[in-house]
Amino acid sequence: MPAAPIEFWFEFSSPYAYFAALRIDALAARHGRTALWRPFLLGAVFQRTGMGPLTGQALRGDYARRDWDRLARLERAPFRLPDGFPLKTTAPARMTYAVQAEDPALSARFGRALFEAAYGEGADISDPDVAAAVGAGLGLERNALLRAAADDRWRAELRARTDEAIAKGVFGSPFVIVDGEGFWGADRLPMVELWLQRGGW
Amino acid sequence: MPAAPIEFWFEFSSPYAYFAALRIDALAARHGRTALWRPFLLGAVFQRTGMGPLTGQALRGDYARRDWDRLARLERAPFRLPDGFPLKTTAPARMTYAVQAEDPALSARFGRALFEAAYGEGADISDPDVAAAVGAGLGLERNALLRAAADDRWRAELRARTDEAIAKGVFGSPFVIVDGEGFWGADRLPMVELWLQRGGW
Repeated sequence: MPAAPIEFWFEFSSPYAYFAALRIDALAARHGRTALWRPFLLGAVFQRTGMGPLTGQALRGDYARRDWDRLARLERAPFRLPDGFPLKTTAPARMTYAVQAEDPALSARFGRALFEAAYGEGADISDPDVAAAVGAGLGLERNALLRAAADDRWRAELRARTDEAIAKGVFGSPFVIVDGEGFWGADRLPMVELWLQRGGW
Repeated sequence: MPAAPIEFWFEFSSPYAYFAALRIDALAARHGRTALWRPFLLGAVFQRTGMGPLTGQALRGDYARRDWDRLARLERAPFRLPDGFPLKTTAPARMTYAVQAEDPALSARFGRALFEAAYGEGADISDPDVAAAVGAGLGLERNALLRAAADDRWRAELRARTDEAIAKGVFGSPFVIVDGEGFWGADRLPMVELWLQRGGW
């Protein structure tokens, strides 16, 4: 039996998740794993924890903006904060689950393409038309994606996944779970890698 | 002229600062620097940011407790959370500044010894007698430390340093500043090291 996928929990409106999204599939593959892309609504988690979007926080918001630019330079990745950030991400998240139900690997490619459109190019992926166009670039059916964004099935799926995230202790984005062990933050990808190498410690 | 010290800002009531405290002096030394140990009162910063102690937060508190044990196993460092955590740390912080005014290197040794007493052995370093006994173990005068903990001069110094921390954008503990560039979190020590190696990027 192949090893279980690692769970990659994220909010599309999370620049740190963008940086993790650029690396998570390759990281998993180096250890014979895949990454299962699990978007959730961070706003619902914030209601539980009392935290809020980084850019609205005194001191921490200024740090984060500087830090994203610094990370982008370090990793030679393009970066810009999309207009209207923080984004309302129900549409791209529901679309991701609709794709995932048919093809998990394709949903990972779609998720990564959405992140690259948002933070590489500044696209407003909260707009269903914009998100669907990203999918169309991967050969997905644009109209099927638009229907998924408005469909009660995927609305319910996203709610249930967000509840699942909270039940698993996910309190921020990105958050990686390896065989039940959780790791918060893009900064922890090296530790995730070590955990996979050693099988924990 | 020797390179400026790197600034190591921390709250003694911060387990993540303990893990950083075990490594910061050696890290600085590898790059021909020293670390200037700068305790501050995180509670005053929380009043500004609206954040609060980790252990009181839903989801995040449970994660942190598990994470500290995991870090301790990884780094083969002893770890226990002191009784009464979070600690009121005015006494050890004032003592540190009193020592630092005479001998910055000794204040770093004292700071590290305080962290090791608190998180290695579970000592309640909020108690001035306990903190002074840690200093006595390094040859510091116990009574001078006790006087420093109650002295208006060091009370004012700690307040001023806490204001300085906020003015410099310090919003959490630990927080390292290298030549004006800030790095939040024990997780960022590898990035601090890279910044020192490359002289920034």
